[in-house]
Amino acid sequence: MIRFECDYAEGCQPEILDLLSKTNFEQTPGYGGDEYTEKAARLIKKACECPNADVHFTIGGTHTNKTVIRSMLRDYEGVISVESGHVEQHETGTIEQGGHKVLTAYSLDGKLKPEHIRKIVENQQIYGFHMVKPGMVYVSNPTENGTMYSKAELTRLREVCDEYGLPLYLDGARMGYGLYARGNDLTMADYAKLCDVFYIGGTKVGALFGEAIVIVNDKFKPNFKYFIKQNGALLAKGRLLGIQFIPLFDERGLYYKGGKHRMDLAVKLQDCFEECGLKDHYGSTSNQLFPEMPRWLYEKLGEKYAFSYTEKIDDDNAVIRFCTSWATKESDVDELIKDLKNIFACENPAEYKL
Amino acid sequence: MIRFECDYAEGCQPEILDLLSKTNFEQTPGYGGDEYTEKAARLIKKACECPNADVHFTIGGTHTNKTVIRSMLRDYEGVISVESGHVEQHETGTIEQGGHKVLTAYSLDGKLKPEHIRKIVENQQIYGFHMVKPGMVYVSNPTENGTMYSKAELTRLREVCDEYGLPLYLDGARMGYGLYARGNDLTMADYAKLCDVFYIGGTKVGALFGEAIVIVNDKFKPNFKYFIKQNGALLAKGRLLGIQFIPLFDERGLYYKGGKHRMDLAVKLQDCFEECGLKDHYGSTSNQLFPEMPRWLYEKLGEKYAFSYTEKIDDDNAVIRFCTSWATKESDVDELIKDLKNIFACENPAEYKL
Amino acid sequence: MIRFECDYAEGCQPEILDLLSKTNFEQTPGYGGDEYTEKAARLIKKACECPNADVHFTIGGTHTNKTVIRSMLRDYEGVISVESGHVEQHETGTIEQGGHKVLTAYSLDGKLKPEHIRKIVENQQIYGFHMVKPGMVYVSNPTENGTMYSKAELTRLREVCDEYGLPLYLDGARMGYGLYARGNDLTMADYAKLCDVFYIGGTKVGALFGEAIVIVNDKFKPNFKYFIKQNGALLAKGRLLGIQFIPLFDERGLYYKGGKHRMDLAVKLQDCFEECGLKDHYGSTSNQLFPEMPRWLYEKLGEKYAFSYTEKIDDDNAVIRFCTSWATKESDVDELIKDLKNIFACENPAEYKL
Amino acid sequence: MIRFECDYAEGCQPEILDLLSKTNFEQTPGYGGDEYTEKAARLIKKACECPNADVHFTIGGTHTNKTVIRSMLRDYEGVISVESGHVEQHETGTIEQGGHKVLTAYSLDGKLKPEHIRKIVENQQIYGFHMVKPGMVYVSNPTENGTMYSKAELTRLREVCDEYGLPLYLDGARMGYGLYARGNDLTMADYAKLCDVFYIGGTKVGALFGEAIVIVNDKFKPNFKYFIKQNGALLAKGRLLGIQFIPLFDERGLYYKGGKHRMDLAVKLQDCFEECGLKDHYGSTSNQLFPEMPRWLYEKLGEKYAFSYTEKIDDDNAVIRFCTSWATKESDVDELIKDLKNIFACENPAEYKL
Repeated sequence: MIRFECDYAEGCQPEILDLLSKTNFEQTPGYGGDEYTEKAARLIKKACECPNADVHFTIGGTHTNKTVIRSMLRDYEGVISVESGHVEQHETGTIEQGGHKVLTAYSLDGKLKPEHIRKIVENQQIYGFHMVKPGMVYVSNPTENGTMYSKAELTRLREVCDEYGLPLYLDGARMGYGLYARGNDLTMADYAKLCDVFYIGGTKVGALFGEAIVIVNDKFKPNFKYFIKQNGALLAKGRLLGIQFIPLFDERGLYYKGGKHRMDLAVKLQDCFEECGLKDHYGSTSNQLFPEMPRWLYEKLGEKYAFSYTEKIDDDNAVIRFCTSWATKESDVDELIKDLKNIFACENPAEYKL
Repeated sequence: MIRFECDYAEGCQPEILDLLSKTNFEQTPGYGGDEYTEKAARLIKKACECPNADVHFTIGGTHTNKTVIRSMLRDYEGVISVESGHVEQHETGTIEQGGHKVLTAYSLDGKLKPEHIRKIVENQQIYGFHMVKPGMVYVSNPTENGTMYSKAELTRLREVCDEYGLPLYLDGARMGYGLYARGNDLTMADYAKLCDVFYIGGTKVGALFGEAIVIVNDKFKPNFKYFIKQNGALLAKGRLLGIQFIPLFDERGLYYKGGKHRMDLAVKLQDCFEECGLKDHYGSTSNQLFPEMPRWLYEKLGEKYAFSYTEKIDDDNAVIRFCTSWATKESDVDELIKDLKNIFACENPAEYKL
Repeated sequence: MIRFECDYAEGCQPEILDLLSKTNFEQTPGYGGDEYTEKAARLIKKACECPNADVHFTIGGTHTNKTVIRSMLRDYEGVISVESGHVEQHETGTIEQGGHKVLTAYSLDGKLKPEHIRKIVENQQIYGFHMVKPGMVYVSNPTENGTMYSKAELTRLREVCDEYGLPLYLDGARMGYGLYARGNDLTMADYAKLCDVFYIGGTKVGALFGEAIVIVNDKFKPNFKYFIKQNGALLAKGRLLGIQFIPLFDERGLYYKGGKHRMDLAVKLQDCFEECGLKDHYGSTSNQLFPEMPRWLYEKLGEKYAFSYTEKIDDDNAVIRFCTSWATKESDVDELIKDLKNIFACENPAEYKL
Repeated sequence: MIRFECDYAEGCQPEILDLLSKTNFEQTPGYGGDEYTEKAARLIKKACECPNADVHFTIGGTHTNKTVIRSMLRDYEGVISVESGHVEQHETGTIEQGGHKVLTAYSLDGKLKPEHIRKIVENQQIYGFHMVKPGMVYVSNPTENGTMYSKAELTRLREVCDEYGLPLYLDGARMGYGLYARGNDLTMADYAKLCDVFYIGGTKVGALFGEAIVIVNDKFKPNFKYFIKQNGALLAKGRLLGIQFIPLFDERGLYYKGGKHRMDLAVKLQDCFEECGLKDHYGSTSNQLFPEMPRWLYEKLGEKYAFSYTEKIDDDNAVIRFCTSWATKESDVDELIKDLKNIFACENPAEYKL
């Protein structure tokens, strides 16, 4: 089975395991009070050109989102997101378990638009204290749909946020892919300029696990470790996070390593999908691709490849997700491309045997 | 100011105040352990032809919904509702505060359709434990949009619920109006047959305040008073609820009293709206009317009448809510009708002076 | 059955029912946006000599405590209380349901001491973000144990609160009794000076139901109605609360009416308990008495009187609660005293027949 | 600085890092759906002689406790624990954030006694639905105080649990030390026989991180992964947990490796404390020692050793925690013993220079 179902099917950049081995018997204080964590934080602030930020490390995306969102909202406030947002769809209601409503807008491409924010805020103003008050805006980039905000688009969102006094939080679970996505013009420094809080995902971009939360706005800095602990996101051996993020962001720059090449693999695969007439449902430009596929095709491919069934279109068609990652082998992509081309070259593609 | 903005602008059926005065210095146990409460429960079970139900009394709709929903769900489950449902829109996120997501479907007329349930359940099945599991279905009748489920429609919902093992909860905040709504073919006994739990609203139908929860399905009966207390819905002097519901449901039948007449007032008003070309936005058939109105009209009427601004259509038009209630005076409805007719009889209606 | 089990066995001051009847068919806006509510708020601010306070009305004590506490804490903060506090013991965990830990200290007399606060705060400082941070102090006066803080004691608590930056919230469910308790030297104006937020209980002191929250500290004023709604404490026909509090606090002063007399009944009863050798377990000085009683005695009295079993002392003895209230009849107290005296005059008291 | 402050100052058993390296580029499904996880579960069921258990892997202790407790309780139920329990003291209120009260009993040695359960249950029965209902019992073994339940004691707790219908959950964060603690007579199979659910801690006993939850009682098995996900305890690359637990519990048995030797280090250190007149405050018999120390002593030792300040005794004395672990070097223990002996051999110990 060749796996394209997600971007976390493998372990991590081998240098990280080497570092974990090398430091294994060192004794350090727990919970992130060690020097590795401190150094990693320093490197990230440098990478974001944001020396005054607070940087915290957590284990995974879901509890990171919950931790940040709960730290930014009062009880009666909710978080604005597109319907396809990770916080709305794929966190088993942990945001609601934490007491907050996700206020959603439908967006086919998964990008939140200024008018979405405007509509949600204005509707709430009609009803006042009978409705959840919008308290912050959540976006991810790349989005869950593989699409990307441009710098101009993110700047426009920031302006609407400012107009309504809403802080902006960006989920960067796949930021490392976004930096090299087709047409991307956003840098890590831009995120620091445009967001109040954001996180840089490690789990999907070369670390074993781990996310780095960057708090830019002073308002959200105090007592943040209480939130991390209460929301189950605190690692006892906190240094494991520091040790991983150091090589990602020091002169080795593993977070960026091979970035262009690995995005080229996604482009190559997407070009093939298009050639085969398999339209990308959301218009992805990053490492998650969402071709629309007939049932016979994804059933056939499923014998040899792993991928995700994302959304039903109708009884015979669905949106399917294929991911490339820092660890994807070009030969695997080539194999898939070859199979696809053979299938569609066939007189009766549905009959073709893989 | 003549008020049509809601159906709780006045106090209660005067007989209720008489009973409260008559019993005022009696001593009773607290928290619903008194004989009035017991008698009221008995009367309601009789009215619903459901002798084995458990009946509990709470103060208002929002904490009633929270109490019932939390009692019916496990932590990882959510409640299915239309987007316009009270639990989704107008409870300041108390359902989420209680840990549960509201899983919504858009419905212009505010009625949940079998295919809504089907789509939500099937989409969750794709993602399994990464998504909130649908755990129950919430509907209200009349709906928030003034529309009504027919017996056939509610039966169909029940069947889909059974298909997926989902219990059905019906919010009857305005049940008393629904019983006399145009075309209604549902009785209180039908609600008891088709729902696992439902509540009969007193606040809006002649009581000072109070709602009667009817638990039909044995599964949801144990320890229910713990839920009432924890969710802030328990009245110390519980007898105040019992005393109110007795005349509503004993031989005096205040819950039904004048029901037909008062719905006639709504019909009369709606006919006038239609004559004036003011389309009902959702197709209401009960005591809440939702005419679409141009800004000049609702601004003009606002000088003399109170009503609610419900939804923006565009910069110049909105959906406006007018309610009639058990206490609405026919003369007030006639006054409004006269004013509307005069306005539209005018050559230049926007210029007309009330 | 003569009832001394609580101070809410009867209805309300009859003038209140008269006012409810008189205003019954007036039309007012909902949710406390009416003139009665506004007037009641004005009267309460005057009674507290605190013109800048915000006053809000809620229905009962449990959701009032939850609403206030959630409005005063951040997620990682807890509320300090004695172990016998209402928020710790008798709210079915609604504070925890709202996400907050109650940080408790044991106190036999039910009064929180400065050293309790000090110990809780200093212990938390050892562990920092691994423990809930003390975020506010909760006291009630009279306490759940019938005891009373003196002005000097409450002032000392205030000072310790200030030392640690903790706001002080006082639950005045029985404030009306406390004002006339033996030795009391606290006025409503004192409460406004010493507390950040407090509430004046109506349910137990002459209203049908209702509590008045007084927010003195500006920090806790914004958006408070969102908290009321989310926590299920908002009454649709909010005027019912305003109408009740007006006669309690206008020139009629029903909140104070007969205050001295009714506390005299408690004193009379307590004197009798003491004469009979029934020690008050907590040292009550207000309207709730807590005599220690042997099992044979409370079982005998239980045939004729209702009271509450509060705490087991050992297999043969318990703490029993008797309450007097605004509605207690002197003849009922005299009857109980006569019975007690007869019992203990008897050679073999346990054999005496009531 | 020589660190005795906790038992997670180092990384992990080196074999684990080797396995992580060896499997690093394998592709596996996420979230524990891989073969390593399956194998680890099988090994643990074998070690517990409990083939029908469900085994799940989570990352750390705090979210594990929250996940299990929320899965075992209904909303109105609480968890019984000693005051010193981890869930009460050191989880920043995450249990309360999850909606549940911790119902506590004071216990100097940190062990819950049958009479504690009995008293909490019987007190709640007095008040019924006004109080949180005890819904389960939480213990840890070794306890937070380093003490250990004997098999007889745990069996007695189980019997009381059965008497009241309460399930028993055991936190085995340090189970690996307990197995070799002085006087221990409990095996992993015993835990499986006596508990409904328990967890085997990896973080403190040789893993990088990770805990294995063993669900014995069928009632708590369904939908458990929803709880894991919602409570932020699910690792994307779930195999990292499986891969770690395999060598801990396969023929290599790293979980037990050197167990006796490492507990001998604790005994050696404790003997020295006793010789120096430093009484163990709680009577520890496992790898966490709690000597009472005068301020001058712990301040002096603090120049060279790291340890934890646990509890203030008075202004001049405190309870101090020293931990040994699977990674503790005998030479470090010997160094500390030598220093302590020198200090106390001195005429004026407080003057001694380390």
